[in-house]
Amino acid sequence: MKKILLVGAAGTIGRAVAENLGARHQILNAGRSSADHRVDLTSDRSVAALLDAVGPLDAIVSTAGGLHLGPLAEMSAEQFNAGLQAKLLGQVRLALLGQRFLNDGGSITLTASVDSIEPIRQGVNAATVGAALEAFALAAAIELPRGLRINVVSPTLLTESVASFGALFPGVETVSAERVARAYQRSVEGAQTGRVYRVM
Amino acid sequence: MKKILLVGAAGTIGRAVAENLGARHQILNAGRSSADHRVDLTSDRSVAALLDAVGPLDAIVSTAGGLHLGPLAEMSAEQFNAGLQAKLLGQVRLALLGQRFLNDGGSITLTASVDSIEPIRQGVNAATVGAALEAFALAAAIELPRGLRINVVSPTLLTESVASFGALFPGVETVSAERVARAYQRSVEGAQTGRVYRVM
Repeated sequence: MKKILLVGAAGTIGRAVAENLGARHQILNAGRSSADHRVDLTSDRSVAALLDAVGPLDAIVSTAGGLHLGPLAEMSAEQFNAGLQAKLLGQVRLALLGQRFLNDGGSITLTASVDSIEPIRQGVNAATVGAALEAFALAAAIELPRGLRINVVSPTLLTESVASFGALFPGVETVSAERVARAYQRSVEGAQTGRVYRVM
Repeated sequence: MKKILLVGAAGTIGRAVAENLGARHQILNAGRSSADHRVDLTSDRSVAALLDAVGPLDAIVSTAGGLHLGPLAEMSAEQFNAGLQAKLLGQVRLALLGQRFLNDGGSITLTASVDSIEPIRQGVNAATVGAALEAFALAAAIELPRGLRINVVSPTLLTESVASFGALFPGVETVSAERVARAYQRSVEGAQTGRVYRVM
């Protein structure tokens, strides 16, 4: 039984991850507004306070982070930066600060998205942020000490999200959040590091 | 003969690109401190003023952008963000604003680095930023109108940079800036889009 911090617990993927991992482990739920522990991933102080409150940990899982969706022709640098700060730097901050709160052999699992290799219209921010997170994990994995591991889960469109985002993904097959959650299980319970688990 | 804006003209790659492309095209040199046109890629206003002054253009080439190099164990989110703002968002800002100043069929060429697929110690910021830029170009290419194109050049360690950075790249073969410049020539004078030109 592992002690796992789950950030983004209220989202569609977060709830499925909590159900999967919660069957065998202790889950500490965190999120922006509706979770046992409140955290703002854009703030060093907020993330540090969360880690102080819940650490030491065996695993940190993030399913958090907002992106900017919109046409390239109208996109501003400020809009683009919003996704960089929320989903990219937010999860990177959690990893950078969280590495010190992990027990030996502990793991970090972050969340990207399929857009990094299969771009869609209006998805340039998502593509950029997703690929950035994948490369972050690849690079961080070779520097982490004490058997610490880091992986990224990159899901395609969720079946649960078709009503909201289906029009942006013509012809794309979907996956259930329950299936996506198994990739987090692989990351947390397995032994791999520097991996991108693509669920498509 | 094309009219080309070159941002980062004073750097090692920038000088080689100016020499290569300058033999056949009109080059407008821009940079942070020592170029014909001064520009701060972290400022919308500065980039817009540059584009107003030099546009319309046939090509925009960026060889600009700083990164944070340092051990993962000691890296702060603020240090990580410095690279995101300078090299990633700076070049993205140039592309987002610059797309409107390009003539039909014009091109944007940005600069990443080999770390995105071959991570090194202390290179987690470089890896992240490089992969992000590659994905940005891949995604932007499918949305650009009017035959506009966008590519990324991803060079390995420059022969000219061995004295400064060689210790970080054990056993890595180097390339001359002159050879790297040919990838920019391919991007500007060729017809491809959404490509990453890896020079290794």
